[in-house]
Amino acid sequence: MTINKRVVQCIFRLIWLVNLSLCLSSAVSASPDVINKHLTDSQSDPTKLGLMTGFPPPVDKRVMLPDSNFFSFPNLRWSVCNMRALLPTENIKRDPFNATPMSYALMQGIDSVTFSPMNSSTRMSWHDSLAANYTDGILVLHKNKVVYERYRGCMDEHTNHAAMSMTKSLTGLIAEILIARGKIDESAKVRSIIPELQGSAFGDATVRQVMDMTTSLRYSENYADPNADIWQYSYAANPLPKPKEYAGPVGYFEYLQTVQKSGVHGKEFGYKTVNSDVLGWIVARASGKKFNVLASELIWSKLGMEYSADITVDGIGTPFAGGGLSATLRDLARIGIVMLNNGKINGVQIIPTSAVASIRQGGDKSVFSTAGFKTIPNGSYRSMWWHFHNEHGAFAARGVHGQTIYIDPKAKMIIVRLSSHPVAANSAIDPTSLPAYHALAKFLLAQ
Amino acid sequence: MTINKRVVQCIFRLIWLVNLSLCLSSAVSASPDVINKHLTDSQSDPTKLGLMTGFPPPVDKRVMLPDSNFFSFPNLRWSVCNMRALLPTENIKRDPFNATPMSYALMQGIDSVTFSPMNSSTRMSWHDSLAANYTDGILVLHKNKVVYERYRGCMDEHTNHAAMSMTKSLTGLIAEILIARGKIDESAKVRSIIPELQGSAFGDATVRQVMDMTTSLRYSENYADPNADIWQYSYAANPLPKPKEYAGPVGYFEYLQTVQKSGVHGKEFGYKTVNSDVLGWIVARASGKKFNVLASELIWSKLGMEYSADITVDGIGTPFAGGGLSATLRDLARIGIVMLNNGKINGVQIIPTSAVASIRQGGDKSVFSTAGFKTIPNGSYRSMWWHFHNEHGAFAARGVHGQTIYIDPKAKMIIVRLSSHPVAANSAIDPTSLPAYHALAKFLLAQ
Repeated sequence: MTINKRVVQCIFRLIWLVNLSLCLSSAVSASPDVINKHLTDSQSDPTKLGLMTGFPPPVDKRVMLPDSNFFSFPNLRWSVCNMRALLPTENIKRDPFNATPMSYALMQGIDSVTFSPMNSSTRMSWHDSLAANYTDGILVLHKNKVVYERYRGCMDEHTNHAAMSMTKSLTGLIAEILIARGKIDESAKVRSIIPELQGSAFGDATVRQVMDMTTSLRYSENYADPNADIWQYSYAANPLPKPKEYAGPVGYFEYLQTVQKSGVHGKEFGYKTVNSDVLGWIVARASGKKFNVLASELIWSKLGMEYSADITVDGIGTPFAGGGLSATLRDLARIGIVMLNNGKINGVQIIPTSAVASIRQGGDKSVFSTAGFKTIPNGSYRSMWWHFHNEHGAFAARGVHGQTIYIDPKAKMIIVRLSSHPVAANSAIDPTSLPAYHALAKFLLAQ
Repeated sequence: MTINKRVVQCIFRLIWLVNLSLCLSSAVSASPDVINKHLTDSQSDPTKLGLMTGFPPPVDKRVMLPDSNFFSFPNLRWSVCNMRALLPTENIKRDPFNATPMSYALMQGIDSVTFSPMNSSTRMSWHDSLAANYTDGILVLHKNKVVYERYRGCMDEHTNHAAMSMTKSLTGLIAEILIARGKIDESAKVRSIIPELQGSAFGDATVRQVMDMTTSLRYSENYADPNADIWQYSYAANPLPKPKEYAGPVGYFEYLQTVQKSGVHGKEFGYKTVNSDVLGWIVARASGKKFNVLASELIWSKLGMEYSADITVDGIGTPFAGGGLSATLRDLARIGIVMLNNGKINGVQIIPTSAVASIRQGGDKSVFSTAGFKTIPNGSYRSMWWHFHNEHGAFAARGVHGQTIYIDPKAKMIIVRLSSHPVAANSAIDPTSLPAYHALAKFLLAQ
């Protein structure tokens, strides 16, 4: 088998990876039965399935081998907790001597909170929503104290779980900090910071347009199309050795230079991961620091994190600013705390107030509406954070397969949910998630 | 290019990896000039060379790409600090809330200590030995306090550096703990614990023989021989996808079952990494826990470690118990502290006294002498620790390219040295290391 054929196989597996950068395994598809019917949460529990259990794991329980795709369902229920064992990663270091335990005020009654899923007249309980959403871990904070905490599936409180596109929100927050500190001018053209992008679509975009994904790109993330640009992007970023005859771009940075423009920037929202990686490049160039080092210095080492985070890298060591982060439930909640508290945690101002305020003001709803996100009809997107513009002013970091840091300022509520839903798109997960979050917010407001 | 050709290329690069399990990059050899003359420590400083610096690093400064072997010299001067960015790894977790700072009593005069390198009539200073040995980090403790600490090359106090075969000593220590707790009988035949090894050389070896590497194996680690068994072993362990037609063993565990006997166990010392991986399998099977989880529970979470350690894994997630560990200088010193203090650290008994005592009694010198280690003429090997049997009773963990945890009980001295010497074999590094350690021990004794 030539490496080219393997690579093509590998690339097609990326249908399941969505925004995940790479695939060390080639793979056989999950059977149509599994895809169509979906095992339930309980049926697909990786411990019950015995995935990767034993020394060695039985052949049919391995999710790391070439013939066992690590991001197909149900294998992904194990893989989301084990990204660093599957892929090369960098470290986002915390301060070894300043982990700060969460404050607890555990609350009864949350499991019994009920809500109506979108487009449904039935009621569902909070408790039942956990299984409906294939939840691996969920933490609810109210007034900065943990009121609810559950670990399921592959996860415990020490587990770094794939954050998927919530990585983008970390990247956006880093960019806002550098803007607040005068290191980046958000109105600057990208080419003035990264001359290598002069000839690309990004050259004449502003930093702000990149941050808000209003760049106009000839670039498709349609995973159903085998000729979509996302495949070339994924291939460029894949750290597997490339065949000698390959003359295409290597790594995120080279690929980004090839993206061309298709219209006018600033008019429409287009959710395209390449923007996040351009922003990752911008913050690295502006600071002179690798993305993971910067994330450590500005955020991870400052918030009392319990664990260092992991971030996947391409073949030249570039962290995947668009989707490579893995972190614990509690550490992600600490990001929620600084976002809810205008940059403060444990009484200390860590993030500039203006950086948080810029994100929290939300984006342009009319620009966002062009993209047609049906489960977020009134939404907007700013600095790689999602805004619901609901009665509570909720906003969120979001990632495929159900990841979220959901912040409800009115209810002083933060929900972090990490999961491994069989469907990547959050449109399949929002119906039993967003109404649950809002119902819980109202429950907490009434306490 | 077929994947088979790539794999062969990759395997040949493993000449440089020695006990490191795998190679994600195929490679071009470093130029003969570099190999033959060796850049000096200063000339090969990875920061001065600009290795992997910039966003992206210039093409000729990349050490991760297929055409730039990451473990050739001088590239390895960067790679030893970045194993997790090159390879899939598992985590050996510390306790997030109990990092315990080192006690300090920094001492003047150490840099001026002099010694005669082996087979030399000249004198060298401690200071000059750091460059002679391509030292990346070195820490000296006296009476459990840090008296000397230097970071050089790619390293700082937050960096996990490749420990190479010092991993074996961690594996040996874990086995001794399980023996002390009655979980493993050291006189048991390996087949009674791992029936899968029944038909291999290890089946009728005792656990003790595996721990002391006195198994008699038809297995060559002669890196100059392209048909040596080490290549099949490395290939089996390599997490790169294997070609469909490959029918050989996959991962450490399957390979180990193929190793055959060539004589009588217990008569001769043979330094062969496969023993360490058998021991890694034994401790996992006996405890029901993955090697990295066990290492965390028994050691890493108990010693006040500052950072979680990394350990490389094979294609089915098996940690490389024979060489995959990366850790910080200080955390490795904490292992030295428990070894010097009969299992205690910070006043608490963490490791059973009998486990440490078993290691510290040393091995059989006559058995060891059969292997002809010229720089350790009076030595022995027990439980994967090296014994010098010098006047101070010194013993050590050791890894290729100059890694050591050197413990001198008489001087109450611990030296941890992490380095990236161009030559893998410690026989090239001992002449300017072992006499330096002994001279420093005498200096400290005189304080």
